[in-house]
Amino acid sequence: MDIIEEAIEAFSQLPGIGPKSAKRIVYSLISSPQKGKRIEGAIERLSNDLTFCKICGNVSDGEVCKICSDPNRENTICVVGKPLDVMSFEKTGVYRGKYHVLGGLIDPLSGIGPQDLRIAELKKRVEEEKAPEVILALDSTVEGEATSTFISSLLRGSAKISRLASGIPVGSELEYTDQLTLSKALTDRMREN
Amino acid sequence: MDIIEEAIEAFSQLPGIGPKSAKRIVYSLISSPQKGKRIEGAIERLSNDLTFCKICGNVSDGEVCKICSDPNRENTICVVGKPLDVMSFEKTGVYRGKYHVLGGLIDPLSGIGPQDLRIAELKKRVEEEKAPEVILALDSTVEGEATSTFISSLLRGSAKISRLASGIPVGSELEYTDQLTLSKALTDRMREN
Repeated sequence: MDIIEEAIEAFSQLPGIGPKSAKRIVYSLISSPQKGKRIEGAIERLSNDLTFCKICGNVSDGEVCKICSDPNRENTICVVGKPLDVMSFEKTGVYRGKYHVLGGLIDPLSGIGPQDLRIAELKKRVEEEKAPEVILALDSTVEGEATSTFISSLLRGSAKISRLASGIPVGSELEYTDQLTLSKALTDRMREN
Repeated sequence: MDIIEEAIEAFSQLPGIGPKSAKRIVYSLISSPQKGKRIEGAIERLSNDLTFCKICGNVSDGEVCKICSDPNRENTICVVGKPLDVMSFEKTGVYRGKYHVLGGLIDPLSGIGPQDLRIAELKKRVEEEKAPEVILALDSTVEGEATSTFISSLLRGSAKISRLASGIPVGSELEYTDQLTLSKALTDRMREN
């Protein structure tokens, strides 16, 4: 039954899908082929009809994405690692500026340096668009911190630079918050008066 | 970004995949299109190259599946609900007989009656193959029990009929076992001497 095994393998490559879930998925596709057709079509369109915005690097259905071509968006640039992060910020509905997608984070262990990311494009863009502020919205990981620090020193003097606040996640209890987060939350405490 | 939303919807239909996992999957396919190609190919082959064995009803790459055409298999018939269950039993390596896949379970609430399942085929097969034993290996649910009871009375007199043992799952603690399972395990206790 090599066809089934190969299909299970193919689905196991997806993030968050282990061999057991892949098996369930494949057998569900066998019993309802129309689900499979729909996924085939969706994948087809993802690869044929999507491209990357030449300004911000986000996924887009045209040369320039909807956000970059929106005249109502402010000139602030929010720098993120990957397209999914743009979606997350857009869902909040709080941010009215634009984005810049780096396409990854600096990660020497995997051989990813600043030249592999869209950092030169960011610098050029900040100068051309006269962005008043650049928000570094990268993962709170070693790679994210390294990338933020690199960009921060590169852009010094060109724009106001800020980073996302770090602290206690909303709705979580102190008892279950790790010590690094706790000390960061303490150091960055906000004055109330 | 309707293409992305549609792709997320398509993946959300799969078992065990919620909207969040679907989002991660879709963005991973955007960044590595070769994964998508592999899945497309796998789905294509599932629908083109797989069929159902005309004897047992399991998925098969030919008219008669490998298990039904294996002369070394005993004539015992293990009755299961769906093809995935065959795979689970085959993985144990313990069973040397054949299978019969019903294609579902009797479920009046969803309008599935005995005539919608491969039950008539089972009866015919038991008589033709002179199966010495029929093992009812159906889910331990209301639907599974109803189906077992129905088949059991239908086949009475044609073959020896047995059911899977129910009891404490191997490796689990009594403390975490539900009361129904506990009382079943007690009633069906095995003599040691």
